[in-house]
Amino acid sequence: MMFISGVLRFLFYKYQAICSILRVASLNTLYPGARIDYKTNIASNCSIVCVKGGKLDISNCSIKAGTQIFADKNSIISIKDSFIGRNCVIAAKENITIKKGCLIAEMVVIRDQDHLLNASQQESREDKFITAPICIEENVWLASKTTILKGVTVGAYVVTAASAVVNTNIPAKQLWGGIPAKFIKQLT
Amino acid sequence: MMFISGVLRFLFYKYQAICSILRVASLNTLYPGARIDYKTNIASNCSIVCVKGGKLDISNCSIKAGTQIFADKNSIISIKDSFIGRNCVIAAKENITIKKGCLIAEMVVIRDQDHLLNASQQESREDKFITAPICIEENVWLASKTTILKGVTVGAYVVTAASAVVNTNIPAKQLWGGIPAKFIKQLT
Amino acid sequence: MMFISGVLRFLFYKYQAICSILRVASLNTLYPGARIDYKTNIASNCSIVCVKGGKLDISNCSIKAGTQIFADKNSIISIKDSFIGRNCVIAAKENITIKKGCLIAEMVVIRDQDHLLNASQQESREDKFITAPICIEENVWLASKTTILKGVTVGAYVVTAASAVVNTNIPAKQLWGGIPAKFIKQLT
Repeated sequence: MMFISGVLRFLFYKYQAICSILRVASLNTLYPGARIDYKTNIASNCSIVCVKGGKLDISNCSIKAGTQIFADKNSIISIKDSFIGRNCVIAAKENITIKKGCLIAEMVVIRDQDHLLNASQQESREDKFITAPICIEENVWLASKTTILKGVTVGAYVVTAASAVVNTNIPAKQLWGGIPAKFIKQLT
Repeated sequence: MMFISGVLRFLFYKYQAICSILRVASLNTLYPGARIDYKTNIASNCSIVCVKGGKLDISNCSIKAGTQIFADKNSIISIKDSFIGRNCVIAAKENITIKKGCLIAEMVVIRDQDHLLNASQQESREDKFITAPICIEENVWLASKTTILKGVTVGAYVVTAASAVVNTNIPAKQLWGGIPAKFIKQLT
Repeated sequence: MMFISGVLRFLFYKYQAICSILRVASLNTLYPGARIDYKTNIASNCSIVCVKGGKLDISNCSIKAGTQIFADKNSIISIKDSFIGRNCVIAAKENITIKKGCLIAEMVVIRDQDHLLNASQQESREDKFITAPICIEENVWLASKTTILKGVTVGAYVVTAASAVVNTNIPAKQLWGGIPAKFIKQLT
């Protein structure tokens, strides 16, 4: 029984690794603007799209199941040496940068655009956007269900609490939480 | 390389479109109370169920991956000309109406029922519900992770902020946010 | 048409039931520390992992699509007679107990560990954790997108409101909500 489970586990992980490599290869072929390296592991049911004219650069990341990464025309997404949990959404129409050593938990949303707010403009809300670049500095930890709104820079070593909605810049080495996110404490 | 990626992309989108049409056809056959038109696009891993005696009417919608739509016995769900993001949950035991032009972001939950709250009744909490109809008027935008609770009417052109929990009616052309959601500003 | 849809529905549910049984069987074989009984129904796209040295005991549960349950080395997860919704995350490095009759809605996160907060320690944030056991007593209802943090005991018959973030113990028969979760009302 232990032997069978060991063999099964070995085959299971090999199978998963091969699927991940095939996914990376097909994404690089499908999207000329995408550059995803083979140290990046992509789990099942992810949707990774780089529209023609966009750039998507992912290296040495672990991307868990169900996550969506979308680089629209003329946008740039760069993610390095980071962990991205299940069912996240990272969607750029301008620029999203995630620097090395970040831990991004499940269901985190990072989107550098909003639809238009006002009703008079809303006939076309689906197609019009206000964008502003997002930068997540090194070694940030975004806890479960955090949302990062357009134009935000999150400083190095920052931690956000679960379900935080961040609509303003956070200086380095601070813990923030709540809706909208507020300063909780200084980290050392 | 560009040529291969172009051909691959063409085949990929054709494949997705055919899967979506097959999904619509099988849902209409599986559930006699369901009427989903062929302008509706349904992505992978969605769970769309219409229990016998329920009605489910979806037309001209784009429904993204992993979303669950559940119309229980004697309930009615109607969704028209709207966008529904990834991993949403729309579950009716009475009535949920989503009018045309709505933008519903990922992980939004719209549920017209609650379990019973009180402990003395809780032996049977799983099977008993308090229901009240939900109506989302035209051109509403529900941002990421919004929750709409039972009995709520969301007015036309309303916007909810990320992670809002809406437990009361919202008049037309207003921005609301927070837990529970409060008025933030008038839209024009 | 009604006949075809009836036959289709019959085959569809049989197919789903067989898939669920195969999943339970393969999980029990793959992970010697896992004991998942055949009354437990596991939907598609779940990730259930029990690392060598961990224990995972699930009986008579309904686990919906996309949910992740992860028992790390030396940790124990025990879940009995409960419902677990779509896209939940239950991740233990020490101990998570969910007693009978619990209703856990979609996108609920229950995690008995945190990464280190402080920057000086953050070079190794990915591998170091602070853990404390979580206990969810009988007949608890955790509404949509609730988060339960490390060290929390949730009393019997408790209800949490949608998107609550619970960082402290909740006495039995109370309704709590908000970020962080606060007392809302006594239940009877």
